[in-house]
Amino acid sequence: MQTVSIAMLVSYDGEPFCGYAKQEGLLTVQGELENALRIIFRRDVPTVCAGRTDAGVHAIGQVVSAELFDRELSDRTLRSLARSINALTHDGVFVKKVVVVPRGFSARFDADWREYRYRLTYGNNRPMLTSPFTWWVKSSRNLDIEAMSLAAKYMEGEHDFKSFCVALSAVGKNTVRRVNSIDVYNESVMGENGIVVRVVGTAFLHSMVRTMVGTLVEVGSGRRDPNWVQNVIEKCDRRAAGPTAPANGLVFWHVEYKGLPNLFADSNQED
Amino acid sequence: MQTVSIAMLVSYDGEPFCGYAKQEGLLTVQGELENALRIIFRRDVPTVCAGRTDAGVHAIGQVVSAELFDRELSDRTLRSLARSINALTHDGVFVKKVVVVPRGFSARFDADWREYRYRLTYGNNRPMLTSPFTWWVKSSRNLDIEAMSLAAKYMEGEHDFKSFCVALSAVGKNTVRRVNSIDVYNESVMGENGIVVRVVGTAFLHSMVRTMVGTLVEVGSGRRDPNWVQNVIEKCDRRAAGPTAPANGLVFWHVEYKGLPNLFADSNQED
Repeated sequence: MQTVSIAMLVSYDGEPFCGYAKQEGLLTVQGELENALRIIFRRDVPTVCAGRTDAGVHAIGQVVSAELFDRELSDRTLRSLARSINALTHDGVFVKKVVVVPRGFSARFDADWREYRYRLTYGNNRPMLTSPFTWWVKSSRNLDIEAMSLAAKYMEGEHDFKSFCVALSAVGKNTVRRVNSIDVYNESVMGENGIVVRVVGTAFLHSMVRTMVGTLVEVGSGRRDPNWVQNVIEKCDRRAAGPTAPANGLVFWHVEYKGLPNLFADSNQED
Repeated sequence: MQTVSIAMLVSYDGEPFCGYAKQEGLLTVQGELENALRIIFRRDVPTVCAGRTDAGVHAIGQVVSAELFDRELSDRTLRSLARSINALTHDGVFVKKVVVVPRGFSARFDADWREYRYRLTYGNNRPMLTSPFTWWVKSSRNLDIEAMSLAAKYMEGEHDFKSFCVALSAVGKNTVRRVNSIDVYNESVMGENGIVVRVVGTAFLHSMVRTMVGTLVEVGSGRRDPNWVQNVIEKCDRRAAGPTAPANGLVFWHVEYKGLPNLFADSNQED
């Protein structure tokens, strides 16, 4: 039987989910998607995602791939498939578009680079409209963005990021990763000030972005100098880095596939 | 006894509240603020707000005024007063700053102009991170922003806005208001596309902004021509206008007071 590979562009609010990866008896993004696919196709349809996110982490550009049989798409459009999935899943997850991709495509292994954005706010003002996706670092002082940007430069490039990985996940694993760029900038959203840490890299370790952000906040708050980060990297020990920033500030923003630019161009899919 | 007038800059997430105005036995913003003031000062402290908002409407720039006795401020700073109020109120409301204002100041009657912003999104993509403050007008078509801008021009200036007011609220009242400006523009927030309708005016009738938005969407969707709005205004009949847009897209953004520019400058208050 002929098969066809599809990729889904998925957004979700991390708050209600126990993370992306399915876990028996718990509400997860993968569990919701695969449950919908099982109802639609009356069989198990395994899926692969670009980046497994922890409980509470959001996504606006997650990509999930699956293999279907040709005949399973013969009586429906890709648009109607997206609609069916959305009708069957929790309101906190939404399939924006489904496209056909080259046979054997893997949302995980074919990824060229991934982008995460982390939003935080500093000071006395509790974020209100932005609180579901912002870490409020309560303090009477402002963060030093210049110092954070300097510190971030030490993280760019290829390094052993063992210090930025959940210790147990790092055991016996290759923890060398390449970070293409980190930008730290101010961004007002719905009238509320915040700082965004935008991280682009080929792949990331468990909790790596959140530990990078927690480490940058140590610098921005003045507790550490920017060049301390060099030291943190060299130690290859999770205890050397700053705390893990909370999950709700993190958004899986985008993933790019080699040879497949604009994979979901015009994600406002029409029939 | 000497008195002192204060103004508070207040933000709130409209979702948990049954509106701004206090109602016996219901969770309201005013109820929360006045309850906190009663606990702090051991007496009833009446408050006046710049704009009473309906259930579900948000605010990032609401202003609330009150009169205190001099001695009530003698043993505390304005910053510690804000902190005390915030410790005693529901998490959905936050006092960003408290300032002393000229004696007899009224947040309502001394307002020069008020600004509301309404956020909506059109198309097949359900907003995810922005859904708490966005009206999703589900449709396969895009909104025509040019047509909406043209239609909005008819609403600018001084008009009888009876057609845009909850019918019962308008009975026997002066429904002439002045709208200084309306801007309609695209704005991406957290990677999610939306359209913002920004309305500035001296004062507004009950549900006026939401009815203006509902009317502009009739035009943007192509169901009506821009000049139809001229007709709606002239009819002075609520039934002539479009539907009332949902509360959750609306944010009370800012209020300006004559002779008191930058009243809350640097709202990230220090001790």
